[in-house]
Amino acid sequence: MSFRQHLRQVCDGVEGAVACSLMAVDGIEVETHLAAEDAQVDLRTLLVEYSGLFRTATDATLANEAGDLQELCVSTDKLTAVARLVSPEYFMVVALRPDGNTGKARYLLRITAPRVRSEL
Amino acid sequence: MSFRQHLRQVCDGVEGAVACSLMAVDGIEVETHLAAEDAQVDLRTLLVEYSGLFRTATDATLANEAGDLQELCVSTDKLTAVARLVSPEYFMVVALRPDGNTGKARYLLRITAPRVRSEL
Repeated sequence: MSFRQHLRQVCDGVEGAVACSLMAVDGIEVETHLAAEDAQVDLRTLLVEYSGLFRTATDATLANEAGDLQELCVSTDKLTAVARLVSPEYFMVVALRPDGNTGKARYLLRITAPRVRSEL
Repeated sequence: MSFRQHLRQVCDGVEGAVACSLMAVDGIEVETHLAAEDAQVDLRTLLVEYSGLFRTATDATLANEAGDLQELCVSTDKLTAVARLVSPEYFMVVALRPDGNTGKARYLLRITAPRVRSEL
């Protein structure tokens, strides 16, 4: 199963999903499935910015011996992004509308991340 | 109702909650209720680091016109932190064990934040 198929499956399973991406922690996009065009937000640029959050969070948890970072969720009044580390170098992120099913997004990322990892 | 009572109420309502804090976005703690001592992680220091995440996320969403930041959730294998903006200068954060009820924490922060805001 290709990366894109995994990303598409996540989008299809989450009500309100706008996109699902596999990204490197340095902000380089590997693959993206767009479920819906969202003219309100430049998604790709935003996800690159959010990858900076992932690095900051990783540094914060390492410095405080708070364990390995698993998941990051950022909600604004226009968009929610749920990201999960796939490997130390890559993460998956689902962007969804504020009324989307965040719980389902978290669940699907949790079960999909190991499958994607095994193909990296 | 004092800040501390609000924080205590959130802790009491969330299974697995370790602490609830009201913090300034510059990382200065206003008030904290500790529900349980967690020797694994230096919570106070970690929350100060997480306030840096809040600033980074705010900058990222503003720069991309992605709306006002509402909520941030960071999960490691030792601890989950759910933070919600109370006003442009303050946020509330609940720290909970990984098996804690994150959904309940998000819900209680959402209904408690306006009450705390009205007392700021």
